[in-house]
Amino acid sequence: MNLKKSPEEGKMLLGMVLFNGFQLLDVFGPLDVFGFLSDRVEIVLIGENGIEAKSSAGPVVKLNCSFSKIPDLDILMIPGGAGSRREVSNITFLKMVRSAAEATPHVASICTGAAILAKTGILDGKRATTNKRAYQWATSQSNQVHWIFEARWVEDGKFFTSSGVSAGIDMAYALVSKIFGNDLAVSIALRAEYIWKNEPNIDPFAKEMI
Amino acid sequence: MNLKKSPEEGKMLLGMVLFNGFQLLDVFGPLDVFGFLSDRVEIVLIGENGIEAKSSAGPVVKLNCSFSKIPDLDILMIPGGAGSRREVSNITFLKMVRSAAEATPHVASICTGAAILAKTGILDGKRATTNKRAYQWATSQSNQVHWIFEARWVEDGKFFTSSGVSAGIDMAYALVSKIFGNDLAVSIALRAEYIWKNEPNIDPFAKEMI
Repeated sequence: MNLKKSPEEGKMLLGMVLFNGFQLLDVFGPLDVFGFLSDRVEIVLIGENGIEAKSSAGPVVKLNCSFSKIPDLDILMIPGGAGSRREVSNITFLKMVRSAAEATPHVASICTGAAILAKTGILDGKRATTNKRAYQWATSQSNQVHWIFEARWVEDGKFFTSSGVSAGIDMAYALVSKIFGNDLAVSIALRAEYIWKNEPNIDPFAKEMI
Repeated sequence: MNLKKSPEEGKMLLGMVLFNGFQLLDVFGPLDVFGFLSDRVEIVLIGENGIEAKSSAGPVVKLNCSFSKIPDLDILMIPGGAGSRREVSNITFLKMVRSAAEATPHVASICTGAAILAKTGILDGKRATTNKRAYQWATSQSNQVHWIFEARWVEDGKFFTSSGVSAGIDMAYALVSKIFGNDLAVSIALRAEYIWKNEPNIDPFAKEMI
């Protein structure tokens, strides 16, 4: 199955990788932003069993495909959440994430999703950031990453990594801006009545933790 | 079935009412805030068929109960989204929302969820707000509501109504502050790395639309 289509030919495919214990806003903050682009972007939810995944807060979402049936993606996203602490030891999961991240033109993590990406080794030599409250644990997943403590999000080549939970929304707008242009990102933020913090280096929560 | 427990005895029960075409962030923004209180608040997703509901962006979530089996709630939330335009004509849905809203101590709407609440008549005589882009349509659901255009959210007695999409998160923190105290709301925002816009009367998007 190859669902990949260029933006010119049709819709881009955004795959969000889920696992039990994912953080709701890590997933649905960014997906709500891309949801305003349903004429251009199709969303698929990917998880190990291909059936469903339970968030740390309780709600359960249905998955569109399992690890064995991932279509070619244009955008790959990895959320964080309490379950990420288990998934950094899940070899099957890490192999799938690594393989999908290698093949996908845009790769983004939210919160401790960066710990998962880092553990695959694919961020080695790259600049990246992650959640401030779980910083020590998340950054310990690879000492080959140039971790940046004070950042709302970090862009390095095709990789976008964002700070804790809510920062993923700001990063998602930056990714929309990169792919589709800043005017569209600004217009979506207006429709969503969202105050976009669009300076990646301004991070009030880094200062809170010092 | 009576799952209602006072906060002193156990967990409060938060019911989010879903329908096909709900807006992802309307639902999962506020639920992520309350998800940090999983030791105090249990979340149930309620919908007409009791099985699942599909968001306007695509992702499908599983429901915990149908309209015929709603437990006693402490907090009721009504999201908006494209589907709300259909649901204001769904008599079964409106009766359920009205009945649950009458019985629940804290009632909140996000975005065009206020149109649904207004259509039930339960907001008549109350102050309320809603989405700026759908303002004319939403406010036309009842001319007995004191609609307030410029507000991030409005609190009137047990009713909280918020502006478009993202405003629901700010309102959710205000509801946490009312129920559990401001210190807890502030500490959750810090953990979520969320910049809480905690002034209900400051609404940059009202100015954008003038």
